[in-house]
Amino acid sequence: MASPKTDAGMSPKITGELLRLLRNAMRNCKYVSEPIQAYIIPSGDAHQSEYIAPCDCRREFISGFNGSAGTAIVTEQHAAMWTDGRYFLQASQQMDNNWTLMKMGLKETPSQEDWLISVLPENSKVGVDPWIIAADQWKNMSKALTSAGHSLVAVQDNLIDVVWTDRPERASSQLRILGLEHAGVSWQDKVTALRGKMAERKINWFVATALDEIAWLFNLRGADIEYNPVFFAYAIFGMNSIRLFVDLKRLSDPALRDHLQLDSPSRPDMSVQTFPYESVYTELQAICAALGPKDKVWICDKASCCLTQVIPKPHRTPIPYTPLCLAKAVKNPTEVQGMKRAHIKDAVALCELFAWLEKEIPKGTVTEISAADKAEELRSQQKDFVGLSFPTISGVGPNAAIIHYGPLPETNRTLTVNEVYLIDSGAQYIDGTTDVTRTVHFGTPSAYEKECFTYVLKGHIAVSAAIFPNGTKGHLLDSFARAALWESGLDYLHGTGHGVGCFLNVHEGPCGISYKTFADEPLEAGMIVSDEPGYYEEGAFGIRVENVVLVVPAKPKYNYRNRGSLTFEPLTLVPIQVKMMNTELLTQRERDWVNEYHRRCRDVVGAELERQGRQQALEWLIRETQPIV
Amino acid sequence: MASPKTDAGMSPKITGELLRLLRNAMRNCKYVSEPIQAYIIPSGDAHQSEYIAPCDCRREFISGFNGSAGTAIVTEQHAAMWTDGRYFLQASQQMDNNWTLMKMGLKETPSQEDWLISVLPENSKVGVDPWIIAADQWKNMSKALTSAGHSLVAVQDNLIDVVWTDRPERASSQLRILGLEHAGVSWQDKVTALRGKMAERKINWFVATALDEIAWLFNLRGADIEYNPVFFAYAIFGMNSIRLFVDLKRLSDPALRDHLQLDSPSRPDMSVQTFPYESVYTELQAICAALGPKDKVWICDKASCCLTQVIPKPHRTPIPYTPLCLAKAVKNPTEVQGMKRAHIKDAVALCELFAWLEKEIPKGTVTEISAADKAEELRSQQKDFVGLSFPTISGVGPNAAIIHYGPLPETNRTLTVNEVYLIDSGAQYIDGTTDVTRTVHFGTPSAYEKECFTYVLKGHIAVSAAIFPNGTKGHLLDSFARAALWESGLDYLHGTGHGVGCFLNVHEGPCGISYKTFADEPLEAGMIVSDEPGYYEEGAFGIRVENVVLVVPAKPKYNYRNRGSLTFEPLTLVPIQVKMMNTELLTQRERDWVNEYHRRCRDVVGAELERQGRQQALEWLIRETQPIV
Repeated sequence: MASPKTDAGMSPKITGELLRLLRNAMRNCKYVSEPIQAYIIPSGDAHQSEYIAPCDCRREFISGFNGSAGTAIVTEQHAAMWTDGRYFLQASQQMDNNWTLMKMGLKETPSQEDWLISVLPENSKVGVDPWIIAADQWKNMSKALTSAGHSLVAVQDNLIDVVWTDRPERASSQLRILGLEHAGVSWQDKVTALRGKMAERKINWFVATALDEIAWLFNLRGADIEYNPVFFAYAIFGMNSIRLFVDLKRLSDPALRDHLQLDSPSRPDMSVQTFPYESVYTELQAICAALGPKDKVWICDKASCCLTQVIPKPHRTPIPYTPLCLAKAVKNPTEVQGMKRAHIKDAVALCELFAWLEKEIPKGTVTEISAADKAEELRSQQKDFVGLSFPTISGVGPNAAIIHYGPLPETNRTLTVNEVYLIDSGAQYIDGTTDVTRTVHFGTPSAYEKECFTYVLKGHIAVSAAIFPNGTKGHLLDSFARAALWESGLDYLHGTGHGVGCFLNVHEGPCGISYKTFADEPLEAGMIVSDEPGYYEEGAFGIRVENVVLVVPAKPKYNYRNRGSLTFEPLTLVPIQVKMMNTELLTQRERDWVNEYHRRCRDVVGAELERQGRQQALEWLIRETQPIV
Repeated sequence: MASPKTDAGMSPKITGELLRLLRNAMRNCKYVSEPIQAYIIPSGDAHQSEYIAPCDCRREFISGFNGSAGTAIVTEQHAAMWTDGRYFLQASQQMDNNWTLMKMGLKETPSQEDWLISVLPENSKVGVDPWIIAADQWKNMSKALTSAGHSLVAVQDNLIDVVWTDRPERASSQLRILGLEHAGVSWQDKVTALRGKMAERKINWFVATALDEIAWLFNLRGADIEYNPVFFAYAIFGMNSIRLFVDLKRLSDPALRDHLQLDSPSRPDMSVQTFPYESVYTELQAICAALGPKDKVWICDKASCCLTQVIPKPHRTPIPYTPLCLAKAVKNPTEVQGMKRAHIKDAVALCELFAWLEKEIPKGTVTEISAADKAEELRSQQKDFVGLSFPTISGVGPNAAIIHYGPLPETNRTLTVNEVYLIDSGAQYIDGTTDVTRTVHFGTPSAYEKECFTYVLKGHIAVSAAIFPNGTKGHLLDSFARAALWESGLDYLHGTGHGVGCFLNVHEGPCGISYKTFADEPLEAGMIVSDEPGYYEEGAFGIRVENVVLVVPAKPKYNYRNRGSLTFEPLTLVPIQVKMMNTELLTQRERDWVNEYHRRCRDVVGAELERQGRQQALEWLIRETQPIV
């Protein structure tokens, strides 16, 4: 998927009374030692999650605006919302006129700091919940405010929660144990590897705050956040101790207690001590109080200001990517096998979908929403299906040109034989996570649509077939995806690929393929990323061709400085519509790539379709994978 | 050229007595208020020049090591030199055993900060000349030392100069006025444009410290530093004043006084006030003392710590690239025409060189050094020749695999018909600066040499022929140069291109083509960069194909979001040896590119060879530019 989105109704929320209550709280000595003149409401949760749980949607609650990115600031006089170009329209529709929309990226739009400085009375205090602001953001904001005579203060009670009387409970879904047949490596071995990294860098403690890292390490999955099989927790690892902070009610299941060896620890250094989720702060304080003068504590630089600041500065070693993030990115052989299985099942569902669409569309009864629902229904028939991995992007004609489009009842269009259809969708299976985009036409695409599609396909192939040295960072491959589009004066305004988790988040670091970042980690065999160039013509159509690909060793003719080489192997095995290609624009090598890819789709997915007795989809697959010349 | 180098004798310098004198100075209250326990000697001059004048070669003077990169630190007990892998051998040969070589890039090598902290007694003072350490380097070093209980102190008198009794005078070469026929834009118009940028950003003052920026702005050239037609100066620009700091003896020439309108200023805001070079510090102090509370001063973040710190922090606005650096990078039409003329003359000299080499090499009398000398002699016959733009890299066989190789008497090899020859050379002409690399064989290259050459050529063409959107940064093109090498498991360990000045430095910012940087500025029509992929097989041969290319608008079929597109036009017009190509590895488009390039070489350079009556070179050119099939 190219970009996250959130569905939403589009009538403005009435916020006058809520803002009045919030402003009261900002002056109430029950919550603040001195009144604060402004309160910042960031988007995130305490774990800097990309998707958040309903109880963490505080910025949406106070403003009505529910896009994936935005920061609200409320002062005594003003309420302002900063968001980016994807959300200008949506935010203006969802917020009432108590709110001022601050359009980020426009020259005339002030930064949050500059705006605060321009509206605040002298010597003001600006409050924020230190749990949901990242340490580096706190630092920048605090510096700017201080230099203008104000101060940033941490307000321990979240003031939105104070006024949010019907705030949902924090989810505490049942935990699922991932057996070795799926995880490949026991959590004990993962802890040992982590401690090896800590010893290498002379680090004594590591504070894990990212939910997918904790789920991965303990071989556990939850369902606390939609689309992301994670659960709310923190963990602190010492060289001889493991502390897990989680709603203790979740640990009553004997199998779970056994998995974590809570009742009969085999070795003291592998004994998990469990604590309530909320006690991470005091426990980390206690650990820090007992630190030796040279002891060092690792914490991600994107962790919350609150937890970060518990660690005294001389002991604090912030890192851009944690060792868990790096270890998780390189899939072990069991995970790779699981991802392959998941992608075969996913391909079965999509072959069925496209065969079904082909039959149904001429009847005029299939819409963007019903097609997405059908895709979900077909996936749910596959073994070990858990849920979707993100909201399906299902767009016809001009709707597909909106990169983060998700169909709503008021925008829902009917699929016809006259327009291009883009579907970007994926699922969580117990053995793996999928994410695939296909762009298809059920009638006759125009020459221009075919031309653009073919440039996108050339870019997709250029990345997928690239051979590059070990140690290459993904951003160095981004231009390969654009060269054919550039040559014709075209481009797309998003990155080319993101890391993909294994029965975990569909977006994960630390690798990716994008012109936007320089801080990504080098690609390594076993990493899994998406390859998804596109082209979007506003008001007309959108094209994207996305496979999930596995980084694998390559064996070219030579081996300069013994560095070794890498390339990609597609995990996604869904035919790419030949009807959309202008094959004359493809080189012989590109045609060979298409034919070889389709041969693999037919062989691998065909066998599974046959096994599942899905005859109609099998026929569709065989027809759609005929070699091109 | 790929990388700078400095020739040098290789016997170690005897430094015992010098170090004794330096350590005395470190304790002498004439220079330091309290004794310092360590003294840092960086490589640079006060302008952060890449090439430096003899009077600024202080690190070389104290240590004997004269590579282009290195930092010396002398304590009471130790003397240590940090340099990178290019110079390990050279530094160990040039330094006596008073010195410890610190091999940067090796895991076991401590950083300068860590090493200082490990050897210094408690509470030490570390001195450095604040004029030759950049502001950001000062900041990092100071922070590290302070956190370990030491302090970094600015020593106003350079302590090397104290012990360097026969230190050369700072050069004060004659200044050359660049007329409008070469500069294209008057210095007054450049000042007006600069003030426009300042007004746009609400900046009141701009301190110029880079020598090429000052030379460019005033349409003046000097010869204070070999290869770089610059002169020692500073300049400070206000909205109504211009201060030039330069050896005032240089300004006696009436033509020069007239050029700068020193005696009869036409407008008060365009009147240049001249000051002695050394008075920049006190004058900047005076300006800063009179700043209004909101006044802002621009200075490059690479400027010296000393000048930077004169500006009080609330008024200081450091910038990575100055407006002069950005303006200078985009060549005006007159400069572009001049660069084209210079490259035609340069091609004439090189055609002559290659025709001469072809005849002479079989006699066994041509060496790397004599070939380089011949190239210089032939260039010097061309109109408006001023000098070389960098030391010629002239390497045969294994010598060419050393990327920064310059032939020395003890390494000098004879050119034969059995080995590949690489020559990377360039010149300064009044109308422009050149830089070209050709790799040729005068007998029969091996299949492997041809294969590697062809991959390098494919990379060269991929960059040169690339079409990309306006706003693209050069680093996004770097992988195009490597794709063909990567596909065969090969690579090269340097960037692909650098900015080139117009009768200025052969290396200039802010644009380039490299995997190493993310902070380059977007490419724009009128910018000029080199395109120079290579391949180096240690102990065997080296290959590089380098043209200087001009960024020009491209007109592809479409124009996405009206962004416009760019491509490159080669300014270098020297045939690329067909004998080195395995044409079967070239695509039809690549063959077309070679033929079209050679057609231009023949048409444009052929006409000039004819005009100059250089028949033998003309015949060579015609033979070497026959179309390939």
